[in-house]
Amino acid sequence: MDGEKKRGRVDLALVHHPVVNKNGEVIGSAVTNLDLHDIARAARTFGAGRFYVVSPYEDQRQLTREILDHWLQGHGSVYNAKRGEALSVVSVCDDLAGLYEQITARHGERPLVIATSARAKDSEWPFSRLRRHIGAGGSVLILLGTAWGLAPEVMDTVDGVLPPIMGDGEYNHLSVRSAASIILDRLLGRREES
Amino acid sequence: MDGEKKRGRVDLALVHHPVVNKNGEVIGSAVTNLDLHDIARAARTFGAGRFYVVSPYEDQRQLTREILDHWLQGHGSVYNAKRGEALSVVSVCDDLAGLYEQITARHGERPLVIATSARAKDSEWPFSRLRRHIGAGGSVLILLGTAWGLAPEVMDTVDGVLPPIMGDGEYNHLSVRSAASIILDRLLGRREES
Repeated sequence: MDGEKKRGRVDLALVHHPVVNKNGEVIGSAVTNLDLHDIARAARTFGAGRFYVVSPYEDQRQLTREILDHWLQGHGSVYNAKRGEALSVVSVCDDLAGLYEQITARHGERPLVIATSARAKDSEWPFSRLRRHIGAGGSVLILLGTAWGLAPEVMDTVDGVLPPIMGDGEYNHLSVRSAASIILDRLLGRREES
Repeated sequence: MDGEKKRGRVDLALVHHPVVNKNGEVIGSAVTNLDLHDIARAARTFGAGRFYVVSPYEDQRQLTREILDHWLQGHGSVYNAKRGEALSVVSVCDDLAGLYEQITARHGERPLVIATSARAKDSEWPFSRLRRHIGAGGSVLILLGTAWGLAPEVMDTVDGVLPPIMGDGEYNHLSVRSAASIILDRLLGRREES
């Protein structure tokens, strides 16, 4: 990055409530072990800042802390130190209001908050615009939904929504692990000279 | 794709043997349920052809077939038909020789076979070149390794290797699920107008 403006910070949050189930009802989802690993590894690879795991359930936050302890201090840290290096970017928090407060306190200002959705229409934040925003020094918090995605009420708290990730067809039912990885690559991946 | 040359076929194979463990020893790995789901969902989203699960172990192939049956014909097909739509692209096979035979018999010629590696140097197949190859009608089979990656002997059977997926830094320990998703997006993802 020598000679260039320092790029902005990209943080991620994986939201377990409020999200919707397949019938569109607002629910809270359980924490999935591989979400933590895969998204933390992608965050670390692409140089994201922190990866916040948002759950209102104390047992789920405790489970998350136990997984982190295993890889950061326990047997996992001996077995595979690279995994701890990735999982060291994970923070746990209770809800979106707490997340926005925590991140604002940490960095002195609220970042641009961008939601993700497989169903978004007419996004004003195509990936290219958000990549330019970050490249120009702007910071962003990306919200990822578990289950069938972020509940509609979340959209009232954000500044924009990324477009869905699509191939040639209409099927776009990616796992949140895949979507997070692709989003980080599109925003922060090292570009080939072509 | 109206008015354009039809793009080539992209198939994927997830290799469970021969791969290496963290000490670089050649091993066979176990099938991971979420590998099947995540990579099949990404394959279906990006319009890949088939997703081959390669394992020399009959119990692992049988486990894979049972997972597929659950989602294609069992309770899973009622609970979430979209998942069966993704998993319908999965085929099971014994080893790389059998895979190359099967895919050659199916399509009448051997596709370009490209390996993936987090450690590849000096790739002659940057993503942009492979994307152009596919766009011009060329077909490709992408080999993905489980555990700590494809064994060196696999490299003698392939036509090239993709470069590692990198961010700004040197850490690039992505899960195979993340790597597969990003590779498909880079090769087949719908590009924004920017």
